Amino acid sequence: MKTVVLKFGGTSVGNIDRIKNVAKIICSYKRKNIGVIVVSSAMSGVTNNLIKKTKELSDNFDPAEYDVLLSSGEQVACALIAGRLKHLGYKSRSWMSWQLPIFSNGPYSGARIIKINKKEISKFINIGGIPIISGFQGVNEDNRITTLGRGGTDATAITLAKFFNSNECIIYTDVDGVYTTDPRSHLKAKKINKISYDEMLEMASLGAKVMQPTSVQDAKLNNISFSVKSSFMKKKGTLITSNKKAFSNQIITGITSTKNDAKVTIVGVKDKPGVAASIFKPLSLNQINVDMVVQNISLNSKETDMTFTIKSEDLKKTEKIIKQNKKISFRKFTHDSNVSKVSIIGVGMITTPGITYRMFQALASKKINIMVISTSEIKISVLISSKHIKKAIAALHKEFKLD
Amino acid sequence: MKTVVLKFGGTSVGNIDRIKNVAKIICSYKRKNIGVIVVSSAMSGVTNNLIKKTKELSDNFDPAEYDVLLSSGEQVACALIAGRLKHLGYKSRSWMSWQLPIFSNGPYSGARIIKINKKEISKFINIGGIPIISGFQGVNEDNRITTLGRGGTDATAITLAKFFNSNECIIYTDVDGVYTTDPRSHLKAKKINKISYDEMLEMASLGAKVMQPTSVQDAKLNNISFSVKSSFMKKKGTLITSNKKAFSNQIITGITSTKNDAKVTIVGVKDKPGVAASIFKPLSLNQINVDMVVQNISLNSKETDMTFTIKSEDLKKTEKIIKQNKKISFRKFTHDSNVSKVSIIGVGMITTPGITYRMFQALASKKINIMVISTSEIKISVLISSKHIKKAIAALHKEFKLD
Repeated sequence: MKTVVLKFGGTSVGNIDRIKNVAKIICSYKRKNIGVIVVSSAMSGVTNNLIKKTKELSDNFDPAEYDVLLSSGEQVACALIAGRLKHLGYKSRSWMSWQLPIFSNGPYSGARIIKINKKEISKFINIGGIPIISGFQGVNEDNRITTLGRGGTDATAITLAKFFNSNECIIYTDVDGVYTTDPRSHLKAKKINKISYDEMLEMASLGAKVMQPTSVQDAKLNNISFSVKSSFMKKKGTLITSNKKAFSNQIITGITSTKNDAKVTIVGVKDKPGVAASIFKPLSLNQINVDMVVQNISLNSKETDMTFTIKSEDLKKTEKIIKQNKKISFRKFTHDSNVSKVSIIGVGMITTPGITYRMFQALASKKINIMVISTSEIKISVLISSKHIKKAIAALHKEFKLD
Repeated sequence: MKTVVLKFGGTSVGNIDRIKNVAKIICSYKRKNIGVIVVSSAMSGVTNNLIKKTKELSDNFDPAEYDVLLSSGEQVACALIAGRLKHLGYKSRSWMSWQLPIFSNGPYSGARIIKINKKEISKFINIGGIPIISGFQGVNEDNRITTLGRGGTDATAITLAKFFNSNECIIYTDVDGVYTTDPRSHLKAKKINKISYDEMLEMASLGAKVMQPTSVQDAKLNNISFSVKSSFMKKKGTLITSNKKAFSNQIITGITSTKNDAKVTIVGVKDKPGVAASIFKPLSLNQINVDMVVQNISLNSKETDMTFTIKSEDLKKTEKIIKQNKKISFRKFTHDSNVSKVSIIGVGMITTPGITYRMFQALASKKINIMVISTSEIKISVLISSKHIKKAIAALHKEFKLD
């Protein structure tokens, strides 16, 4: 039988009316005589409310109990959806991860699914039932509940699609797909019909917060195409699939930008082997994420300038760590906390020359100064002053025919 | 090792401060080097909130999903308690019913525990751990969650005490014990130190709403003494135990009263065999609970009057059913919805003659008219006008030296 995995995020099941709506969506698939497997997150707000409680009880709440606590949210949502479907006359029931089971390993709050026992679900689908499965969780070898971390319900959906060899996997959420750029900051942003896993990964990690990169990576590794759709509007979503299937004439698929970046320059660093490691190791040990890095060519072979970007919130900590670092010597520490990174992303650039030039030209024509450049196979990023961000996105959106 | 089962009700874990307080209580036992087994209800309000959701989704919510839903409440409370204990440096962890498992059978929302797998808990206690076990639930032979109905966490506590052969079982709640009569309606009410299972059963079913009768019955059948205590005050509670152990010089242990009763009289019923059944069967089929029943002696052997009490809210329905009943013929239907039942309870009355007389005398001295009388081995109940209820309780409380 043809099967489809439908995943509903927290906002999609955020209140009673939305749960009724989700039941309607599920029924619309069921009526087409398709085997439906549903995965649900907790109702939005519930998880944050539970997290708040843990913080009131301990500044270091036990990770195992934290997972027991949080997983109750999906239990509630799944029971409500199954109950609603039964009310509508459908055969349905909820399954918690321990009931299948969905086996997981790895740390609490960051576990990964390693196996799903399909037996009960397959049987239930074959007799026309609609299983509602709790996302975001599994049971480990100690028979304890472990949650999968941020975006864990997406991971459950992708893994179910893999284990059940599903024909389709649809991620229902509160946005209607992936856009060429953030529609809130650029009115001409357009929904993308198809995008490759790789492009989606670059989009996701750069701030198009539709999906966690780990789930996209999972889908890519298992070659599972999936769609992102809104549960609130009847609209075509975005299909995320392999490079080959996502192929279009579009060279650039999307443009992303960051907020709250800061640029740091360490002027006059003594240039010797291992100096970069000496600078970045203590930052990494302090959970400071360094993004773009540029080392100026040292003219006299004795000194160099090191420039890199971090999150603005890490600036003070970074300055302190650098200044206390006895393994390096330098002349000056400067910083600019009003910078943003703008990136253009597209598998098309692999085979199309001149993209870098066109990007720089488009920005130059608007008198936007580029501070730092960084490139990968399918992405070019530039660091510019935050005040130019809207203008830069508009120029690039137009240049690469995304309008 | 000496073990004690501690049960915490919904109000005892009703917010974060109360959970902190519960953790303190648990630690106070642990410090005495006693093996502690904790059972918790859901935080108060949570269950009602979930029930409200089901009603918004269906007027006939699926019972199996209802139980999945409701059982999430205990999961939250147990994880929070265990997390707090770990924060305080104790070895603790939560166990859901499926993790032990606690096996149940019977219908959803009304299941009973049939077996508890002790292995993991025994091991954990032996290494000094404090297990926090979800009350109110079990898993049935289909590996689905079933809840135990009202007062189900008490049932879990009593059953755990039985399976673990515990030395003590303490039911922590929001009252500090069982009183001689309701302290809200009689200022001289006093806390009872010891009471027998049988007396407690009569007290409970008559409105002293400390505990569900089924759990008291369970305790009686398995001869498990337990205490009822407040989690808010450091006070001695009430011990509920066997007749023998509860023995005291007190003849009457407590006085209870009802509100919202109605008295119905069917005047001039044709007196023939089976007439009582003809009257009461349709009432029972309509979930109307008939309490006290009196049938007047029929003088001419042809007609009789039938008087009985019901809840006031059932009066209209009762009248309709009686009047539509074609199996009986009668002359008149009268009713009085301002009546209350007052009962005196005590195992002492089995061996002490004259109690009935003293009760009637005490009421007569206050000019209180008795409408209906009903007696059992350890209880005498009278029906009086609701307006005399306070006066009656005061008179009886004094007469039987409970003040």
